[in-house]
Amino acid sequence: MDNTKKVDIFRVKGGEVFQEEDIVILEYPFTIFIDDKEIITLLCSPNSLEYLAVGFIYSEGFINSLSDIGSIRIDEDKGIGYVYLNEMNKFSEKFRGKRTITSGCGKGTVFYNVVDSFKSKKIEYKLPIKVESIKNLVREFNRKSQLFINTGGVHSCALCTDNDIMIFEEDIGRHNALDKVFGKALLEDIDTRDKIVLTSGRISSEILIKVAKRQVPVIVSRSAPTSLSVEMAKELGITLIGFARGEKMNIYNDFPSLIV
Amino acid sequence: MDNTKKVDIFRVKGGEVFQEEDIVILEYPFTIFIDDKEIITLLCSPNSLEYLAVGFIYSEGFINSLSDIGSIRIDEDKGIGYVYLNEMNKFSEKFRGKRTITSGCGKGTVFYNVVDSFKSKKIEYKLPIKVESIKNLVREFNRKSQLFINTGGVHSCALCTDNDIMIFEEDIGRHNALDKVFGKALLEDIDTRDKIVLTSGRISSEILIKVAKRQVPVIVSRSAPTSLSVEMAKELGITLIGFARGEKMNIYNDFPSLIV
Repeated sequence: MDNTKKVDIFRVKGGEVFQEEDIVILEYPFTIFIDDKEIITLLCSPNSLEYLAVGFIYSEGFINSLSDIGSIRIDEDKGIGYVYLNEMNKFSEKFRGKRTITSGCGKGTVFYNVVDSFKSKKIEYKLPIKVESIKNLVREFNRKSQLFINTGGVHSCALCTDNDIMIFEEDIGRHNALDKVFGKALLEDIDTRDKIVLTSGRISSEILIKVAKRQVPVIVSRSAPTSLSVEMAKELGITLIGFARGEKMNIYNDFPSLIV
Repeated sequence: MDNTKKVDIFRVKGGEVFQEEDIVILEYPFTIFIDDKEIITLLCSPNSLEYLAVGFIYSEGFINSLSDIGSIRIDEDKGIGYVYLNEMNKFSEKFRGKRTITSGCGKGTVFYNVVDSFKSKKIEYKLPIKVESIKNLVREFNRKSQLFINTGGVHSCALCTDNDIMIFEEDIGRHNALDKVFGKALLEDIDTRDKIVLTSGRISSEILIKVAKRQVPVIVSRSAPTSLSVEMAKELGITLIGFARGEKMNIYNDFPSLIV
């Protein structure tokens, strides 16, 4: 399905008004069912829906590994993803009474429990930050972000080695873009523990929690981090890089020995 | 409470690395209770918390007007807002069994119900779009967005007449910023039905639904709208303006007679 749509607009330039055709980013409601129970409707870009479904249910704790999933079916026309868990993980047994989870900018009531549960999960692997590699990756990442260039309305996210972008996904939501990346990594059995995540979006505590859950040692953004993500990154041993643009970047950690 | 925090960083410029102090935007967990029941933890900027609490519970349908609220108390140190409803609206009666709502980028399972419920609520008031007024408002709006200029990590939102910004709020989340604006309008009994909303963030369907709920006839953004917000704006009779920057803007509606 196309990720954009043509619309008629009036374009104002200075004192003049022109009737023109413009391209806007598609916003596609995608509802996820687990074992026939409706979980959430994500507002997303309509590509890589299987990755999104898998990444989302992993991020929200419905599964712990790919082997928890029995089958997945995507109905693109209806905007529905049906996930069936393996017998031992059946939804009704595991999540009876669980609160509906939130997916977005505001985290649900379980926020502090989630934060606490990560405090013990320090990142084991120390990936040295090769400044030149990061610059090259960011340059390549920006080049790939064609949908943003066309519409100005989409976030990009990537999983990289220190010299190569392995997975690249786009979505109107920065959370969805990251979930698509991790969903693909799960489905293709790509180890995330020695990789770098690149994102076009802000790094909030929720983005950092998702990255920590996959034990990714480095996250890099074109945009700003928040205070909470900086604190959590230090505590967890994740290298957090913000404002990575051209020849510049800010490193929000105290590991000077890792900068090479 | 300060909206920013100082952190030590390594700043990379070209081939050099400098140890410096930098300012990052504060991310503050704010938990809302209604009648002693925990509703949600919003990750927000720690200002205008009373406005945020009122705007959020209005946007999510827990109240229909200010008169539904008996009292509000904000505990800034603990990051908690306690809202007590009036006797006739008691939470336990009204929302027993209601799903936990989502606040963020992805709307909960009730999405299509919400969309359907707005299809009948056309905006009554047609506010002519004075192109020069919009340009002036956007210029003033950008000038006010000082927190963004300092940290690069915050969204702004405003409620305006056609020549004046009446309410201006900032937050790390574009939804929170809009909820703060509408919360203040409710608390100060400001009619929104003949006003303009300005936002720095993308206009998604969820932002449009919030604006429609307050019967605001015009929404203007520095950023992009999505396809769904454009469709809903046309259906509801809301004038949607995107990419409002300097002398330029795009008007995503078919009301040329309203452009003056």
